[in-house]
Amino acid sequence: MTTQPAVHLQRTLTRELPRFEGQTVRLQGFLHARRDLGGVQFLVLRDVSGVAQCVGSGLDLPLPESSIEVVGRVKAHPKAPGGYEVQVESLRVLSAAVEPPPVEIPKMEWNVNPETMLDYRVVTVRGLKERAALKVQAELVAAFRDHLISEGFTEISTPKIVSAGAEGGANLFPIDYFGHPAYLAQSPQLYKQIMVGVFERVFEVAPVYRAEEHATSRHLNEYLSLDVEMGFIESEEDVMDLETRVLAAIMTRLGERAQAEFALLGATIPDVPARIPRITLMEARQLVTEKYGHAVGGKDLDPEAERLLSQHYAETQGTDFVFVTKYPRAARPFYTHADHHPDGTLNPEITRGFDLLFRGIEITSGGQRIHEYAMLMDSIAAYKLNPESLAGYTEVFKYGMPPHGGFAIGAERLTARLLGIANVRYARAFPRDRHRLTP
Amino acid sequence: MTTQPAVHLQRTLTRELPRFEGQTVRLQGFLHARRDLGGVQFLVLRDVSGVAQCVGSGLDLPLPESSIEVVGRVKAHPKAPGGYEVQVESLRVLSAAVEPPPVEIPKMEWNVNPETMLDYRVVTVRGLKERAALKVQAELVAAFRDHLISEGFTEISTPKIVSAGAEGGANLFPIDYFGHPAYLAQSPQLYKQIMVGVFERVFEVAPVYRAEEHATSRHLNEYLSLDVEMGFIESEEDVMDLETRVLAAIMTRLGERAQAEFALLGATIPDVPARIPRITLMEARQLVTEKYGHAVGGKDLDPEAERLLSQHYAETQGTDFVFVTKYPRAARPFYTHADHHPDGTLNPEITRGFDLLFRGIEITSGGQRIHEYAMLMDSIAAYKLNPESLAGYTEVFKYGMPPHGGFAIGAERLTARLLGIANVRYARAFPRDRHRLTP
Repeated sequence: MTTQPAVHLQRTLTRELPRFEGQTVRLQGFLHARRDLGGVQFLVLRDVSGVAQCVGSGLDLPLPESSIEVVGRVKAHPKAPGGYEVQVESLRVLSAAVEPPPVEIPKMEWNVNPETMLDYRVVTVRGLKERAALKVQAELVAAFRDHLISEGFTEISTPKIVSAGAEGGANLFPIDYFGHPAYLAQSPQLYKQIMVGVFERVFEVAPVYRAEEHATSRHLNEYLSLDVEMGFIESEEDVMDLETRVLAAIMTRLGERAQAEFALLGATIPDVPARIPRITLMEARQLVTEKYGHAVGGKDLDPEAERLLSQHYAETQGTDFVFVTKYPRAARPFYTHADHHPDGTLNPEITRGFDLLFRGIEITSGGQRIHEYAMLMDSIAAYKLNPESLAGYTEVFKYGMPPHGGFAIGAERLTARLLGIANVRYARAFPRDRHRLTP
Repeated sequence: MTTQPAVHLQRTLTRELPRFEGQTVRLQGFLHARRDLGGVQFLVLRDVSGVAQCVGSGLDLPLPESSIEVVGRVKAHPKAPGGYEVQVESLRVLSAAVEPPPVEIPKMEWNVNPETMLDYRVVTVRGLKERAALKVQAELVAAFRDHLISEGFTEISTPKIVSAGAEGGANLFPIDYFGHPAYLAQSPQLYKQIMVGVFERVFEVAPVYRAEEHATSRHLNEYLSLDVEMGFIESEEDVMDLETRVLAAIMTRLGERAQAEFALLGATIPDVPARIPRITLMEARQLVTEKYGHAVGGKDLDPEAERLLSQHYAETQGTDFVFVTKYPRAARPFYTHADHHPDGTLNPEITRGFDLLFRGIEITSGGQRIHEYAMLMDSIAAYKLNPESLAGYTEVFKYGMPPHGGFAIGAERLTARLLGIANVRYARAFPRDRHRLTP
């Protein structure tokens, strides 16, 4: 009973079906699943908004994933997904699949054969759970930007092809730039600071690159960085206050626009407290050792310490967020501003750098930056960096940079943590890792 | 008379001064200009919103571009910029410049010593006209995204590190990816098409890379691409209709938020007609030859023909926009969909590809794409491309891709054309060209 297109009908989305009970609608989407019981055929049509069960007779069903158009009558049906079914009057195949998909899209399970799932990502990414992660990320990024614009921030676009790294030279991907050596930018750090001299408050949403050899479930070699830099601050406290407001705006938007995706993945949207708890790194290390008996290695928090500290705040204050503050100089990059002693003099050992932990993992690094030229040059010398390779950056500090600070959020890591996705690769459409350059 | 900070006062922006006549305000910003007449000092404070003239006595003025805070009383003053002056009660230097800037920021002129201006871009970008271009671009990009989201589009983030180019292999920057050859993406073309199978309508705002050796005033080696792809279309007409709505939304927002920037640069915001005129490439070539006596070389329009065609539409229809449609196959990439003869059969010589001209220059390429697997493989063979290097892309067309099309706008080129900026480099914060890897 394939018939001519019913182009006189506006397209209806599957999530709108309840509004059209008893009426004839036109759906467009993909053949998500099909079952032929001889005289009667069931099919599930998937569109951007969800899925709809459709039933008809005498239908010539194409292969799964074919693009199709269904015209039919909407009927309440308690057992159908969403509570409604479409009784098919006509089915039009817009574009037939020529092969069955390599995996059955409706039956995919998270992290079953993750490498196979990623090898066939061009089609597995159509899965409802797979795409839910990317939809949540899109909403999260939109909320990030919209909130910052509402606070007077200006969006910037900075070079990803650079002549030197922001952090000193390790972990850079080399590029052949017309025969000259160049690199993929690890971070827009230095450029966003320069732009504070132009727009005072700036942000950028763009990919960054880390040529890290190790392959872990929390690292990507290419990821989307949500970068912020803010001038005319008093201290890093202003930056943490800003990040708190940004996170609150993100969770509000996710509550408005991504409830279905969180439900599908069995995840909950966290509350952001009006003031996220703040604990110094030294106190955090002590707490984890004394309360949980975990001896923290290194100068930072190790992954287990991050997990335990988050557990402490979840248990005692009911929050998924905690700022860890006042990092020692040895654990932060050269551009981090020193903290002050209570008498107002600088404390060269302690910085105004902070991390934000969310559900047991670091999702942000931030802090106040050095804004005075002499202090910056002293810091470059103390870190044994080459001032000439940083000259293009340090130059601007001769010209009156205001006190400023900022932070960066890894979009995929936040997405994965929000949704309980164990491997950050599934929070990126086409991840790049040590062994994966395609698709 | 430098005094303690007046932290009890909320910060006021310079553009808000008219609301505070007779009151004491606190301004923060940069020392844009200064003049010392002995007993009295004039200074111009620049902040993100504009400039304010301030006057005081006994002030110890730092070097230009220093970060400063002024507390003072707002007084109407017809000769001051904006009509108000601040009578300084206290001046606090937040961060003193240690050298005078290499060029005088208030006296810079467009394109005077362009290479010098770009060499010192970290500070010249603070200029009022320089930053106006970047502000306009930020608003333009925000309008692009907001409009597409309002039409149900989903934002995506696709890889910029790729194993092969979308257009066949020329003009790619090579990357060393853990010892494997890789390239910087020329375009998200293939990935945004794949994502139509996921979200139906998608967009991306991200940098793209062209390793073009030539240096012209209209090309950048790294630029911000505003990419759109839309599924379930009838033809490329749907795509042109969409782009018209996007452009209208952009101009509306610029009218609301960037009037001052257009005024500063002496530019006008164009009207977008409800229907932008459409002319086929063949007709356009004929028109330019017959009306202006210009013999068009090649298979496309040359720059002079683009200019003349725009002139024709400005003169006859009063519009700055025109779509040039139905490009011959030889002038479009392999993934472009063929047009149909009037009888409905395919016309292999003519495509559904189009360009958009704005004020004499092409700012968009777009079109309907091939969505059927067999047709795509035939096209790859006809273009003598290697199907294996494109296998990661063609794979998805086995699985029922719907009819789709899209377009891309170069953000810097549109910005430059809107503002009458002759060289597209000035529409990017830190441009990359044949000879410029820094700052």
